[in-house]
Amino acid sequence: MAGTDRTKQDTVAAANSGPAVILVAPQLGENVGTAARAMLNFGLTDLRLVKARDGWPNAWAEKASSGALEEGVRVRLFDRTEDAIADLERVYATTARDRDLIKPVMTPQTAIAESRGLEASGARVGVLFGGERSGLNNDDVSLAHAILTVPVNPRFASINLAQAVLLVGYEYFRQTQEAEPLIPAATEEDLAPGDELIGFYEHLERELDSHGFLYPPEKRPAMVRNIRAIFQRAGLTLQEVRTLRGIVASLVRTSNGRKPL
Amino acid sequence: MAGTDRTKQDTVAAANSGPAVILVAPQLGENVGTAARAMLNFGLTDLRLVKARDGWPNAWAEKASSGALEEGVRVRLFDRTEDAIADLERVYATTARDRDLIKPVMTPQTAIAESRGLEASGARVGVLFGGERSGLNNDDVSLAHAILTVPVNPRFASINLAQAVLLVGYEYFRQTQEAEPLIPAATEEDLAPGDELIGFYEHLERELDSHGFLYPPEKRPAMVRNIRAIFQRAGLTLQEVRTLRGIVASLVRTSNGRKPL
Repeated sequence: MAGTDRTKQDTVAAANSGPAVILVAPQLGENVGTAARAMLNFGLTDLRLVKARDGWPNAWAEKASSGALEEGVRVRLFDRTEDAIADLERVYATTARDRDLIKPVMTPQTAIAESRGLEASGARVGVLFGGERSGLNNDDVSLAHAILTVPVNPRFASINLAQAVLLVGYEYFRQTQEAEPLIPAATEEDLAPGDELIGFYEHLERELDSHGFLYPPEKRPAMVRNIRAIFQRAGLTLQEVRTLRGIVASLVRTSNGRKPL
Repeated sequence: MAGTDRTKQDTVAAANSGPAVILVAPQLGENVGTAARAMLNFGLTDLRLVKARDGWPNAWAEKASSGALEEGVRVRLFDRTEDAIADLERVYATTARDRDLIKPVMTPQTAIAESRGLEASGARVGVLFGGERSGLNNDDVSLAHAILTVPVNPRFASINLAQAVLLVGYEYFRQTQEAEPLIPAATEEDLAPGDELIGFYEHLERELDSHGFLYPPEKRPAMVRNIRAIFQRAGLTLQEVRTLRGIVASLVRTSNGRKPL
């Protein structure tokens, strides 16, 4: 019983790192490296290789990973896909081809949303990717619970292995961070208070009146509203209000040696 | 009137193809090719190159594009970023670095949601990507309305050019296949195209130069960027740009019977 509890705990801890990436029969070491790099860009660290053609460890992979294989991605080797997914409760198979197999077909978005729910309850999830030339075979696909298909232009679909991994990683990271707030253009403390804004508007409008721009009088109120709306929308900081007042003061001054019209 | 209608129709038709991708000072032709390939995977076809180092057309780009440059991606060349965005009403700058410029920072998800809303009302949208080595410079970023930052693992961020394009394309395709666009804040009013905005900026800066406001010279570039940022953020309509130009012209003119200082 104690053993079971510990396994459960380990699983929950591992769940925070997102889905495992399982490359089945990858060919070029370089492509394994770029896949590892794509993983770590989005915080994925569990990489499993099934029958890597060029062997492991692999110098090309390490070079292409830009340090990802040293800095966080953990690699494990397996002879069979069955062994690589043995500890996973849910497996998705990435493939674009139509299959006779009757399985749900999901976008990365849906698959990741589902897997995040599963991970939250302590399940382990993985995504199978096939080799560069022919992708996953039917036996591999049959081990998956669902098919994951990246939606692409049907007339030009040329996603490579690292790109497919990148998009799955992006979906994971995007959904994990979804509650992230938009960074406002300016923080609350920087923004100009209302009286400073109105001081600028009145300064500008005084000058525009004296230059005959806000004319005729019956149109003046609408013109003033439209001009103020431009600057309101920009969400000005105090510094910017000062800059704008400086601009107005500068423009109405006759320039050095310049003759007024 | 017929001319106006046709322009509007063309714009709406073009809007269906998603954001333009603008590569500023890309270095390797191969990377332009993989970016084009990533675009077409998600149905994006409007590629613009500003000062491509290796020239155009480029055999490496064609090879790396896997046919995308022959099968649908249209390439146009520009000498300046200003010219490349001249017809765009909304521009996003992809950058991960902190900037002093005060602009909203958005995820691809939010930027694409916003841009789809704008496109639905006939506006044209583009995304700026910097060169491989150093990304966009501050002058390029200052031409954008907002910053687009891909959320990545802060301890391992190594997205390359084609991957950044891929993720923006994926977001576009994902959202296109998913749901209704967000309703844009600027409703049905026509946003000003980039060349109109730049025309206003240059007009204002000319007058500020002649009035000695953009002084000393070493501070001029930062002052110009900060002033442009105010107006970029406001998301100006064409009518508002005309109003602002009228304001500048009015202020520099000596008022009726008023003595210059």
